[in-house]
Amino acid sequence: MNTDATGIAPRDEPAIGGDDRVELPAEARVELAVRTAAASRLTRSSRADRGRWLVAIADALEAHRDELVAIAGEETHLSSARLGGEVTRTANQLRFFAGVIDEGSYLEATIDSPDASLVPPRPSLRRMLRPLGVVGVFAASNFPFAFSVLGGDTASALAAGCPVVVKAHPGHPRLSRRITAIAHEALAAAGGPAAALQLVEGIEAGLALVQHPQVTAVGFTGSTRGGRALFDLAAARPAPIPFYGELGSLNPVVVTRAAVARGEGAAAVASGLAGSFTRDGGQYCTKPGIVFVPERSGFEAALVAALSADAVPAPQRLLTEAIAAAFDRGSVELAERDDVEPVFAGERAADVAAPVVVATSVGAFVAAHETFLEERFGPVTVLVRYSSDEQLTAALGLLEGSLTASIQHAPGEDVTALAEMLEPVAGRLVFNGWPTGVAIAWGQHHGGGWPATTASVHTSVGATAIRRWLAPATWQDAPATVLPPELADGNPLGVPRREDGVLVAPVRSEA
Amino acid sequence: MNTDATGIAPRDEPAIGGDDRVELPAEARVELAVRTAAASRLTRSSRADRGRWLVAIADALEAHRDELVAIAGEETHLSSARLGGEVTRTANQLRFFAGVIDEGSYLEATIDSPDASLVPPRPSLRRMLRPLGVVGVFAASNFPFAFSVLGGDTASALAAGCPVVVKAHPGHPRLSRRITAIAHEALAAAGGPAAALQLVEGIEAGLALVQHPQVTAVGFTGSTRGGRALFDLAAARPAPIPFYGELGSLNPVVVTRAAVARGEGAAAVASGLAGSFTRDGGQYCTKPGIVFVPERSGFEAALVAALSADAVPAPQRLLTEAIAAAFDRGSVELAERDDVEPVFAGERAADVAAPVVVATSVGAFVAAHETFLEERFGPVTVLVRYSSDEQLTAALGLLEGSLTASIQHAPGEDVTALAEMLEPVAGRLVFNGWPTGVAIAWGQHHGGGWPATTASVHTSVGATAIRRWLAPATWQDAPATVLPPELADGNPLGVPRREDGVLVAPVRSEA
Repeated sequence: MNTDATGIAPRDEPAIGGDDRVELPAEARVELAVRTAAASRLTRSSRADRGRWLVAIADALEAHRDELVAIAGEETHLSSARLGGEVTRTANQLRFFAGVIDEGSYLEATIDSPDASLVPPRPSLRRMLRPLGVVGVFAASNFPFAFSVLGGDTASALAAGCPVVVKAHPGHPRLSRRITAIAHEALAAAGGPAAALQLVEGIEAGLALVQHPQVTAVGFTGSTRGGRALFDLAAARPAPIPFYGELGSLNPVVVTRAAVARGEGAAAVASGLAGSFTRDGGQYCTKPGIVFVPERSGFEAALVAALSADAVPAPQRLLTEAIAAAFDRGSVELAERDDVEPVFAGERAADVAAPVVVATSVGAFVAAHETFLEERFGPVTVLVRYSSDEQLTAALGLLEGSLTASIQHAPGEDVTALAEMLEPVAGRLVFNGWPTGVAIAWGQHHGGGWPATTASVHTSVGATAIRRWLAPATWQDAPATVLPPELADGNPLGVPRREDGVLVAPVRSEA
Repeated sequence: MNTDATGIAPRDEPAIGGDDRVELPAEARVELAVRTAAASRLTRSSRADRGRWLVAIADALEAHRDELVAIAGEETHLSSARLGGEVTRTANQLRFFAGVIDEGSYLEATIDSPDASLVPPRPSLRRMLRPLGVVGVFAASNFPFAFSVLGGDTASALAAGCPVVVKAHPGHPRLSRRITAIAHEALAAAGGPAAALQLVEGIEAGLALVQHPQVTAVGFTGSTRGGRALFDLAAARPAPIPFYGELGSLNPVVVTRAAVARGEGAAAVASGLAGSFTRDGGQYCTKPGIVFVPERSGFEAALVAALSADAVPAPQRLLTEAIAAAFDRGSVELAERDDVEPVFAGERAADVAAPVVVATSVGAFVAAHETFLEERFGPVTVLVRYSSDEQLTAALGLLEGSLTASIQHAPGEDVTALAEMLEPVAGRLVFNGWPTGVAIAWGQHHGGGWPATTASVHTSVGATAIRRWLAPATWQDAPATVLPPELADGNPLGVPRREDGVLVAPVRSEA
């Protein structure tokens, strides 16, 4: 494969001839992108090759850091420090998935030898996971690197062996095109199939992508409304496909009375919360949007003090004008409600969004919980004042699925009952920490029940994110010549396998 | 828990008072069943307890074998030999899942220690899979034990820790009630929560079950039409849930020319096919429904001979009158087509369905493939005669997702290219064997693309069927007291875990 095979040319240099194709109707552009991606035959590539290609893309991304951060800064208004960190995160994530496929457990390789004495009798069965085929990935606005063209969905899908057609986010079109071009160059230079990564733009293209017969699954990060509309489309196809949507999330926090009983405790928790919900303009899917605080504990004063201090990030210009307008409208509506009290309102300037905190009672929260449980993007959070465990329990019982739930507690305090209450709600339970900041790790989980995701049994961050792009296959009594090497006798590639029910993790010699 | 807590009384003995509840509207019956199941708190039970309970149910099933086989025979017309084997299979499957949860890999327990040097920094993360909550299971007609009340969906869900509400199949209502009662008794005697298994009946109850807010996932085995309707309902919920439907399947078979080149080869393949598509009246989701055979190879004569021989099972009365009528109508329609030739038609009697074989050309198959690719329940199969590799390739390219695909080949023949063509089609690739007969094993896969299933990334048979009822959860910086024992320091329960990226399979001492 070479860069000529990529089909849709990167569009940052229109003079090179990409424009003809851009003028095609959305369905034709998607058709071309999907067919080109499929023709890459990435599904037949080896894990070793894909690992090298992922690392080559990661290296290229970092090599272009300054140029990319500059474009991203213009398009998203996020700070250079934040964007630079995000480039590192994105490159590390690509390398992380290279490691995941090198290790090989993700294949779930399983070998059962024949046993005619069983009921029913068992033939020779060899099973492993295989790539689904071409997948669609919808980029998010708030992470122009880590949840965009080369973000976690793309990295995990390419690692799995699935060619990817990315639907660019309109919030950073130039960056999306430039990153695609860099990835194509890196793949071609490493001898990889550049065609395996395709970029399409525009709402119509997104709709066509979800409905394309050759698309086998979709990953999405974005709003509940948009995600639900696409999920419905995916489910309504003649042949339905999995739609892995990471949608809105409220990320409830419970602050126990003991956590803020001492003055320094209140100050520390308040400072942590102030930093977390305002971070990068509160534009995180893990932003704490609702915080259950003990009534008359002094916590609110500590929070106001923290938000007034210099330590809090400067007010942030939000990603897009639509997001800024929705934030302004939403925070005004919230502050004007009869059942809330203003706690803090930062100084608003023309271009920037300043922090907003309101408080309400458990009674008001229970009465109007559907409104309070709506996700609000931007630096705003709602405190719910509770006076007793009973009140807290009643309120927590109304929570819906969320990516995270956090408990701020005193050292040694027994929070077992609280944790049990929050477990069914959240994909990740955080103790004496803040939900913003999602580590890339084998043990990470970034998911949760509806409306946090459309596919509660899967994750979009962490090693097992790769599982979304794979389906099992079993070979029964197969001749050795047709078996993938990971299922061959003697385990020549040394992957962890289950052999006749026993998990065998081979000791691997490092090269 | 005791049997009084089960809520919905078994209905085989109406005198005992179950009838009042039966009169409730479907929605109320489902509401009661779901709430009762949820109240069982099975999700909080230990793996050790659930393992004991599954074995107790398996033992009880076998202890009532004769009684159950008699009821099943009356309701399904299947032979006692077949039904007796199915009881064993079903009991073995319950014990198999007890073994799966005892081994513990299915939890995917993962521990990452903190590392502040990473970008982003990594806190302490501990992840494992947790039961989803109450699930719904739709029983099938053709396996009154193995895919019904205590079949694979129920066994895997209970093993996972999910309470189950079964929608009984109307083809064997008395058997369904009796099996439920036996399971309740066994659970109660073993100190288990009998309430964790509930039975509801009727179409309306099924619709209410899929839409109940507390139901977290659904397993279904049955027709494409019925499964699709329920899948659509599950997807249209305000909070969508996973719908794991195992629907129709065509199970294509390719017979190579070399396989039937010698006379004895043709006879052996013909005899195998005759036995497979007629087995128990051809009422298997794995019945070979379309067979690609080399033109003028003598295979068809061998097949006619095999079907005329005494070795073939006697004609079978089909499961229900509706199935028998559909079979009669469908085989007549098929045989009357201008583009098919009759190959074999067994002697039809009033009550039984006799085998039907027709043949067509690749050209006719390609032209009318949508019709030929429809699943036909009962002892009927379609031969597609090919004359060249090109013809075969063209025909195979039209196949849709199927549970299985089989290749009958000569010893030592290179079938790599054929296997590659069939891999994207089928969940299980069978070599020189027949797809009917689905072993229960770690390496089994019973799934495939649409229309074989609605959830191509999961299986409904084999150890990993349990994965459908679980969702990940991650504990971040959690105090030891709130952690499940499988994630505790020192691994007190000895489950396989991934610790800082390394898979650790502890050596377990056998008690």
